[in-house]
This record gives sequence, structure tokens and C-alpha cells, in this order.
Amino acid sequence: MDGVNGVRYADAMQITSAANEKVKHARRVRDGREDGLIFIEGLRLAEEAAASGLTIEACFYPAGGPGDGRAEALLERLSGKGALMLETTPDILRSLSDTVQSQGLILIARRPETAAGLLLETHATLLLGCDRLQDPGNLGTLIRTAEAAGAGGILCLKGSADAFSPKALRSSMGSAFRLPIHADADAADLQALQTAGCQIVAAAGEGEMDYTDYDWNQRTLLLLGNEGRGVDPDLMRQCDVRLRIPMHPSVESLNVAAAGAVLLFEAARQRRLAGG
Amino acid sequence: MDGVNGVRYADAMQITSAANEKVKHARRVRDGREDGLIFIEGLRLAEEAAASGLTIEACFYPAGGPGDGRAEALLERLSGKGALMLETTPDILRSLSDTVQSQGLILIARRPETAAGLLLETHATLLLGCDRLQDPGNLGTLIRTAEAAGAGGILCLKGSADAFSPKALRSSMGSAFRLPIHADADAADLQALQTAGCQIVAAAGEGEMDYTDYDWNQRTLLLLGNEGRGVDPDLMRQCDVRLRIPMHPSVESLNVAAAGAVLLFEAARQRRLAGG
Repeated sequence: MDGVNGVRYADAMQITSAANEKVKHARRVRDGREDGLIFIEGLRLAEEAAASGLTIEACFYPAGGPGDGRAEALLERLSGKGALMLETTPDILRSLSDTVQSQGLILIARRPETAAGLLLETHATLLLGCDRLQDPGNLGTLIRTAEAAGAGGILCLKGSADAFSPKALRSSMGSAFRLPIHADADAADLQALQTAGCQIVAAAGEGEMDYTDYDWNQRTLLLLGNEGRGVDPDLMRQCDVRLRIPMHPSVESLNVAAAGAVLLFEAARQRRLAGG
Repeated sequence: MDGVNGVRYADAMQITSAANEKVKHARRVRDGREDGLIFIEGLRLAEEAAASGLTIEACFYPAGGPGDGRAEALLERLSGKGALMLETTPDILRSLSDTVQSQGLILIARRPETAAGLLLETHATLLLGCDRLQDPGNLGTLIRTAEAAGAGGILCLKGSADAFSPKALRSSMGSAFRLPIHADADAADLQALQTAGCQIVAAAGEGEMDYTDYDWNQRTLLLLGNEGRGVDPDLMRQCDVRLRIPMHPSVESLNVAAAGAVLLFEAARQRRLAGG
């Protein structure tokens, strides 16, 4: 329904105080302090979240409507699906924002949960595993790169950054909403994948095989390690193969997201060649 | 020479006030407001800078010495080479730091300058060009990846981030000190490379050739574009070939540093195959 100042929604609630309980709650979601909920900012990511079927609990938008046809279409859709519509002020949106410039639109959504078993059951033949990756930007970039290369799921080992934190979501650009992501995985989950016939290969400076010599047409989980310390030594031993990327001797290592891109797209290249 | 509180250097100057002119000057260098000088923070980067033959003008270190054998060896070497040794307090080092945690050691060095002609004259057969890349972290990561893949130089077109800003240096991990980097390049510099027999290839979502079909054994400059807008349309037309990276249709594009890694390491792979 249209109100006097532009778009309004059937059950929209107006919030004019930053001390409002819903605003405080959203701030806790943003900071990762509300289990089961995630914070999504900006039109583009909000569209990706809606398109991927995430359950949207609430939507903060500026009073008078977002002033943009695409955003208004999205808000109507969210309102129709039962999201709590929260009309608020630019100041409150700014105070909630995780970025320097407020994106004008904030969703609170249910966190997607993927059990380890689901990754086992998928027919995905390329998976990405992250062992204690610390930087949410690296993790998000890797999730986006993995989807682009045709990977079918992500497994984050305990101690990794949160793939659904605001910063990781900005870097993954919607890929985190489309790929199944199993968080808090451990060595037993890798073992279960091995038992099911999946090769676990780690990126390792001292690997015994060049990454281009590995047969990426096998069902494979690529395991990448912590930015400073690499893959945990116990996990490294558990891997079927350790792969090295040959490089100029003056460079000690690649950034983990760059290494992941090189490895994942070698898999994609070999699979294209094989007609996959 | 050893002083009462640990290491001292022949002409060391003691600074105890954050209002000291040398501290203010260092802050301007850090913020990119002193032409011809760069700000290098942390032992690791400082070692790389010294090893690469950069002229170090000044060195800030904590009173009493850095308390670390490796750092003390570096300081002795810098002092011997005529760097101005500035003994100061942890508080002043923190106030100068570009990072959340002070790295305890800060160098002021002359900015390396590489004329466009030098890139033309090198025998490097792989070069990286950056067109208005905005994020210093992306630029630094790309410089590191380029060196790892065997590239022999970097050309930054006008409007790109500064390859020698503190953040870019942290991401390039010393590669920016070793590779020749020509800043403020323009279309004429690319034209001169083409005339000299270098292929200019751009990464382009709508490219006419898959990047794996390109013959990377040719002398090639790979041109990467701005994070949001890609390569400038005029430059794009000037390129000899536009290369696309085949990817899953739900992903619109890769992060530019990830795309660069994929392309540069395809060049390295083909060159290894050719026995280069």
C-alpha cells in the first residue's frame, strides 16, 4: 500500500529511536552475538538472499521507502513473505551499518545450516575445505571463487572465520547463500568423506606433487589452511595428497585466496578438457 | 656500540615527543603526503626492503633496542649504511603505526621509480598491468602473485592505488621491492609495448577467447581492471585479445586478485610445459 510519503507495507512498524529493542537486537546479530541469525546489508546482497530462499525475519528500510524501483520490488516481496518490515531513519540505518557508507537496507535472516552429512550426500565432485582461515575477506572471496569454479559445497573446520559475518558475505557476493556450507567441521568429517571415496588434497608449500599433475577429475575436497600457519599438521597427514604450486623462489607463499583460485580453476580447466 | 640500555648506534637520535618534526614527517610519509618517500613497517618488510637495495633514509626503533637478534642485525646494517637512527618510545611507535598492533620498527625509504622505458627494455616476457585498481590490498596481492608466477614487472595506469602505500606493501610482502613497478602509466605506454612486440591481453567477462586457449608463451602484458567497472573501454579496444574465464553462470565475476591469480598461473603452467 502507498502511504503519504511513498511506499508503506501492511504491517510496517516505525522505529525512530536507536535504543529500540529491535535495533539493539539487529546490532547483536551484526556482531555475531545472536545464534541462528545473520545480518545482510545492501540491495544486491539482500536480493541474492531473497532469491536463494533464505528465511528473512526482518527488514530495516528508510522511512518513505528506499526510493529505488528495484529495492521497492524486493521490499514488497519480503513483506508478502511475512518479513517484519521496520521503517526507520537514515541515522539509525547508519548506526546499524557494518560499512563506512550505509547501504540503506538491512535484513535479518535465519542462518543457513548444512549438516556434514549433506555434503557427503551431494553429488558435488569438488568441495572446498577451510582450516582455521582467519580473515573473513579471504573466506568470502574463496567461497565466491569456489562457486565460480564449479565447487558444490564448503566445509569450514572449527576455528575458521564465520562465512556469514557481514564482511565475509560482502566478499562472497551471494555465493554463501547458494552453496551448502558446513561450519564447525572436524577431522572426523574429513574422514567420512574419504571413506565415501572423496580425495582430500591440501595446498602445501612442501607438497609432494605439482598441482597440475593431480587428476582433478576425481571427487576431491581441496583443503586450504590458516593464513600464517597453513593446514594443521595432523590434518595435513590425514590428507591423501599434498599439492604444491611451483613459484618463483623469491616468493615464499601466495595469499590463501590467490592460491585457492589457482587450484580451483586448475580443477575447472581439467574438467572442461575432460568434457565435464 | 652497546649503551647502558642495550643496543645504541653511532649517531642515534633520541625522540621522546610525538610532536617532534621527524615524527610528524614520518606520519606524512605514511599518509602518502611526501613525494618520493615510502613508509615500511615491521621487521619482515624492513628486511625485504634492505635486501632489495632500497635507500633507507631513517629508521625508528624502540629505546633499548628491538630486543630481537634478527632485528638488531638489521639495525646495525642500516646504521652502517647511513640511515638516520631514531630511538623512540613504544607510544610514539604506536602513534605512527598504520596497523592496529604496532610492528615496533618503521623505516622511511626512497620510493623506487621505474620508467616505462625500463619495462620495455627488460627481457621479461610476462608483465602485469593494473587499470585504476582501487583497493591497495588487491593491488599488493596481485604484485605478490605476479612475482610468484614469474612476471618481470608491473605497470600501474593512472588512477590506480599506490603500490607503495603501507597497506599495499603488507599485501605484496616484499614483491613490490623486487619487481620494477612503473606508476602513472597511460595508453601510450601500452602502445609502446605493443610496438615492441608485446601482446596486451585484458581480462574481460565478455572476452572473445577462453584464457586457456591463449598462447601464454608469447611476450604478454596482462591487463586487469577496476574492481567495479573492469578495464576502461578505450583501453579494452586497444588490447590485442580479451580473455574470459569460464565460470558457473550464477557467479557474475571473480574478485580481481583471484582472477589475476588464475590468469597469471595459467601463463606459468603453459610456460613450464614448454620448458621455459
